[in-house]
Formats: sequence, structure tokens, C-alpha cells
Amino acid sequence: MEELGPFRVMSDGKTLYRNPYSWNHAANVLFLESPAGVGYSYSNTTADYDRSGDNRTAEDAYLFLANWMERFPEYKGREFYITGESYAGHYVPQLAHAILRHASPAINLKGIMIGNAVINDWTDTKGMYDFFWTHAFISDETAAGIDKNCNFTAAGAGAATSALCDDASDEAGESLRDIDIYNIYAPNCQSEKLVTPPIAPSIDNFDPCTDYYVDAYLNRPDVQKAMHANVTRLDHPWSACSEVLTRWVDSAKTVLPIIRELMKNNIRVWVYSGDTDGRVPVTSSRLSVNQLQLPVAAKWRPWFSSTKGAGEVGGYIVQYKGDLSLVTVRGAGHEVPSYQPRRALVLVQNFLAGKALPDCKECEQD
Amino acid sequence: MEELGPFRVMSDGKTLYRNPYSWNHAANVLFLESPAGVGYSYSNTTADYDRSGDNRTAEDAYLFLANWMERFPEYKGREFYITGESYAGHYVPQLAHAILRHASPAINLKGIMIGNAVINDWTDTKGMYDFFWTHAFISDETAAGIDKNCNFTAAGAGAATSALCDDASDEAGESLRDIDIYNIYAPNCQSEKLVTPPIAPSIDNFDPCTDYYVDAYLNRPDVQKAMHANVTRLDHPWSACSEVLTRWVDSAKTVLPIIRELMKNNIRVWVYSGDTDGRVPVTSSRLSVNQLQLPVAAKWRPWFSSTKGAGEVGGYIVQYKGDLSLVTVRGAGHEVPSYQPRRALVLVQNFLAGKALPDCKECEQD
Repeated sequence: MEELGPFRVMSDGKTLYRNPYSWNHAANVLFLESPAGVGYSYSNTTADYDRSGDNRTAEDAYLFLANWMERFPEYKGREFYITGESYAGHYVPQLAHAILRHASPAINLKGIMIGNAVINDWTDTKGMYDFFWTHAFISDETAAGIDKNCNFTAAGAGAATSALCDDASDEAGESLRDIDIYNIYAPNCQSEKLVTPPIAPSIDNFDPCTDYYVDAYLNRPDVQKAMHANVTRLDHPWSACSEVLTRWVDSAKTVLPIIRELMKNNIRVWVYSGDTDGRVPVTSSRLSVNQLQLPVAAKWRPWFSSTKGAGEVGGYIVQYKGDLSLVTVRGAGHEVPSYQPRRALVLVQNFLAGKALPDCKECEQD
Repeated sequence: MEELGPFRVMSDGKTLYRNPYSWNHAANVLFLESPAGVGYSYSNTTADYDRSGDNRTAEDAYLFLANWMERFPEYKGREFYITGESYAGHYVPQLAHAILRHASPAINLKGIMIGNAVINDWTDTKGMYDFFWTHAFISDETAAGIDKNCNFTAAGAGAATSALCDDASDEAGESLRDIDIYNIYAPNCQSEKLVTPPIAPSIDNFDPCTDYYVDAYLNRPDVQKAMHANVTRLDHPWSACSEVLTRWVDSAKTVLPIIRELMKNNIRVWVYSGDTDGRVPVTSSRLSVNQLQLPVAAKWRPWFSSTKGAGEVGGYIVQYKGDLSLVTVRGAGHEVPSYQPRRALVLVQNFLAGKALPDCKECEQD
């Protein structure tokens, strides 16, 4: 409700407004609160929450999808794409992999797209500290301390927690304490209180308090009733970050082998990155994708979200052989469609169409 | 008129509005269009324009100042500070140096502050390409090509132009062609035409077409008359970038020795950097200041432009022994007061007061 959906919530926590850049302009969109325990989703067996992990999430999501296709058979066989961001860098390829394994003809999987995605632990972490340093959020000394004392390599990932490494990481954390690392240039939310009457929202200027509006909205009884959600009366509120799940039994150190396998099976893979996110930043995505050592099919170039007049660079794209593209979205934080909704819509439209993103022939004529 | 002044120009090119963050809230401000040939300034001897250079600019500016003090003796002996940005990284320390040399008691020089400043050629250039790469505006291949083929070192600055280096630099230029490198996340100006009636301006959201409004305003006969400017009827219009000066006879490769000398003479030095500028970016300023190898007096930490509620990090500051501070301004491009006027005012107020920038005691209490 605060990213790619058709509606956003106003500052009163109860009024909606339309998002003109919602992704259902590009395709039918199915949202899944996954795994069980997240959002309105739940399990009747409480002990399930202690068994959550990557594998279980993929299997549950596959089961959901297979059953959903039975319930809505008119969608069987249609082109099907999965996208997600952040830790969905695990969920999305793993679900795609489960779909391939089950080889269900109902699910005609064509591609996946993951944004600011966790995909390879050591490069993701190294890239994060590189980003903080090169964006001048941590000192040269702290960056040097991390570089020297933290062993972020495929081999050394386990040994990364030395006392000196911890000291340097703590310094970095202290430097970033009052920064929204999910969008390093964003203002902070100044008050969690709802505002009535609501302030006229600007779709181009993301309100940093949106979390609180959405939280209030999705916990309203009338909203839940209208959505047929929470009919079992959960013992906890809807929340953006679930507190129900306290254990995570398996987390792959890398999903790069899965990505490689998807590519071999002609699944289109786009890895995109909002370039002002500090949590899983663009430096991480580049380092991680570089681990695949893919040959370049079409070299790095700007793409355009608007090609009229002086044009607007939406970000950059590099295409690799085997149908993997790395795409940046300029000026977007972790939640790309929140911060750059227009650019994000151009992104998903072209991903689905299997087209490289627009270049700037028109701009040149101007 | 588009940065720190008391007035800004609306989109009609003739109406003014107040800048609530203008620097004359902090001190009396004297603006100097320097050197002769720039803006409204001129020489009666046209040949002077071919003799322009760093040395001449400093001497002329010193003469101007000395005469100005004679004309307005009530300002003699008052605390005096010089600030400037970009190539003023040369002008400001060089003028300060001229003031020291002339030892005029009228000019009580206390400090200088330079922003996104050209101060040391090879580190400035190296830092620029580092910035483009780490901010994901150029490809890994281009960055590697520059790193390998361009010899950006103190010794090798002259040898930097190999064919392979040129190729890599051209690639970088191509990647950045449609980006405003003076503020890498900014929108482009979509039309140079003036807009009447003017659009209500937002001081917090810099209009990327402001250059055109200011140009129109300063070329109005009524404006020039009111300002007692251009009384000699120049043969060229006022412009933001002078086309009168075509030769530049001397440009120091570095002003670091001058900065060192100023520090020895108890002149406060602040080097600040809007951290989203790509022209003389924060990576350059850090590399350049590091060349001085100064001991740290107060370590790198965030500073706050607003300490109410959740607080807003204005940027970072590190203080070195000898009264040199390196300060970043978060989310500001090359012209810091244009893009972050509130943060820029806090910056100059504290610079003048000789105070370290605010920390966040208040934020913690909230």
C-alpha cells in the first residue's frame, strides 16, 4: 500500500488516494503476504512459526500459487512473473526454483525481477560498507577498520565477527543512527501521530511517515472486514515487520546458483537497485551480480523514464548474456516504487515486455 | 541570486521572493563578481581579459577590498570572512593569502570557507571518477579503464592524457551526458522559456530552470538601473558563465600549501561539500584534504540542521588540529545553498561563530 499498489493511504490513516503509477497498469498483480505469520497471513499450528525458513517459505508459496490457479483456472498458462525486493532476493528465486521443480503446466513462469535484493551475503555486506564510505556517511578511519578487520569473503563469512570488526561496525552504526538507511537522503518522519484532516499527498514526494498511516489503515476493523482479512481474529495487529516469527531455520548464504539455474531454464532475470538505498545498496548488487561472471550482451548505458524535452535519466542498465539485466533506478531508496513511482512503472512495463529500457533518441532531437 | 542571497527570482524572470535562509541572517554579506569580465564587472582595458589568471584575480580582489574599506571605513577592523565555491577553492585562499601578505590592519581576516572546491587537481579529478563509479553512474569497465589508463597522481598529472585514458573518460562523459552532474539526482530543466504568471516557488525544492530566470532578471534595464550596474553599457549581456574571458594565464595545480600557511596564521579553514555534487564531489574533497595529513581533533560525526523531534542529519563533520574542518552537507549539489538552504545557513552560522556544528542531544531526549 505504500509502494506499487493502486491506492496509498493519506495522513489520517483512513482515506485512500490513487497511485497513478501502480503496477496494475502493467499487468494483473497478485500480492502475497509470505511467509505465514507476516501481515494477515497465519498458521493454525503456532509451532509452524518456529519452523519458518527459506525452504518452507518457497514450498508454502508454491502451494498457495498452485491452489490459487485451481481456484482461478482462467489464469492458468498465462505468462507469469514474480517480483519482490529486499529479502525477497531469496524468496523470489527460491519460489521460481520450486515452480520449475514442480513443473506444473498451470504456472507459465517467464521471469523474475528482484530489487535491492539480498542475494549473496558477503558481497551484499561488503557493498553496504563501501556504499556508506563512498557516500561520505562514515569516516575514512571506520571504513579502513572494516576493510582491515572484517573478513567479508565467500570463505571467511563466518569469521567476520572479530572484536575489531565489531568495533568498526559499531562506529558505522553510530554514524548512521539518525539516517534512514533505506533512503539515505530522505527526511525523517517527525511524528507517528495521524494527521486529520489529511495533508494533500504528493505522489512524487514520498511522505516519510507513510508506515504509520498504512499501519493504522490495515488495523481498522472496517478495512479488514471489507478485505475479508483477519477473519480468525489474530492475537496480534497487522504490522509492517512481523514480531510473530522469532526463529529462522535456514537462510542460504547465496542464491546465485539458483539464479544461474533459472537463466539456464530461460527464465528472464532482472536485478534492479534504487541507488540511494543504503540497506542493500547498488554497490552490493553490482558486486553480487559480478560474482556470476557473465559476458556483457549490451553495455552499461543510461535509460530514460521520460524522453520528452531534456529527458530524465531513470537510471542505468547493463544486459548480460543469458537474459540477466542489472538496472539502477536513480534517486530511489530501498522501496523503489515509493520513491520513484514513475521510473518504477517504466521499469516493470519493460521487464514484462522483454524490452531493454528506453534510450534517448527523442531527447537528442530536442 | 540563486544561492545564498536574500532574494530569488520567480519563473517570470522579473518577480522576486524572499529566501528565508539567506546568509545575511548570519552576517553582513558583500558579493564580488570577480575577476573583471565576469557578470557586470569589467575592465576599461580590453587586453586585461587576456591576462586573467589566479594571481591577477587575487591582486584585483585585494585592491577592491582595500578600497572598499576606505570607502566604508565603519567596517574597518571588523571580523572578516571569505567564502566561495567551486573554482573559488582557488580564489578564496589566494585572496586570503594576499590579505595576509599586505598585512592591512583594515581587514581583520578570521577565516575562510570553501565549498565543493577545486583545491588539488589530481585528487579532485580522481575523486570525481571514484564518485561516478561508486554512485553507479558509470560502468565497472569504464571505472577500471580510467583507473588503469589515467595517471592521476601529483607526479603524473601532466601525463594523464593517454589515448586509452581519453577513451575511458569519453565513455564516462557519454554515461553522464543527460545528468546534471552538479546535482546528480536533480531533474533537468525542461524549458528555457520564462513562465508568466510565475509558479509559486518552493524554497525547499530548487527549480532546475532558475538559471534562466536569473539571467532574464539581471539583463532587465530597470533592474540594472536600480542596481547602478552596467552604467558603461557593456557589449555583452550579464551571464552566469562569462564568455569574455578566453585565456587563463596561471592556475595553481594545488592550493594546499596556501591552506597550510593560512592555518599557521590562525585563519580558520572550513572545507564543505554538498554530497550529491558530481563536479567537485565529496570524494574529491576528502582525498584532497587527506593530502594535508592533519591529526584529527574531533572525529567524524553527524551534525544536525534540526534537532527537534527525530532530528535531521545535515551532514557530517570532522575537525582537524589547526582549526580545519571538513563538513558535508547531505543531499546538496554543487551550489549548496540552492539545494539545502536550511542546512547551508546552519553551516555558515556555526562557521562564523567558531562553533562545531550542532549534535543531537535534543533528538535523544525525544
